[in-house]
Amino acid sequence: MYKATVIVKKRAKILDPQGKAVEQGAKLLGFNDISKTRIGKYIEFFVNTTDFETAKNEVIAYSEKLLVNPNMEDFEYSLEKAE
Amino acid sequence: MYKATVIVKKRAKILDPQGKAVEQGAKLLGFNDISKTRIGKYIEFFVNTTDFETAKNEVIAYSEKLLVNPNMEDFEYSLEKAE
Repeated sequence: MYKATVIVKKRAKILDPQGKAVEQGAKLLGFNDISKTRIGKYIEFFVNTTDFETAKNEVIAYSEKLLVNPNMEDFEYSLEKAE
Repeated sequence: MYKATVIVKKRAKILDPQGKAVEQGAKLLGFNDISKTRIGKYIEFFVNTTDFETAKNEVIAYSEKLLVNPNMEDFEYSLEKAE
């Protein structure tokens, strides 16, 4: 069993309206030092296999097919043995 | 200037319908080894100060007021010097 963590970020050139909205809220609350807020996804799951290569391939396939929009987002992942 | 990274996760006891939905998609595509998918947020921003303590306090305040729902979510952050 492996525990996988996938971080999904919008590419630098893609607008992030959610980040912009939160940052406007920040300005209204007086946080004037905050800039360039970008909001991505942090995904955790388990892969039920004992083989590292199998786990790695499943994480990449799962990410590319369901977790990440390949037109706008990049992802990175890490795997650690669990149990 | 500091670059801040904040990771927001739903607490273990809080349902994650988005994670469940993605995982159902995974099952339909034949990923049968994947389980317990949980989707959180990964937030990056810059804090325009040279003082570490100030940066830290701003990151915590910004997180607690705008990025995190304190009833359902926990967060962790990291700060690194930028420029």
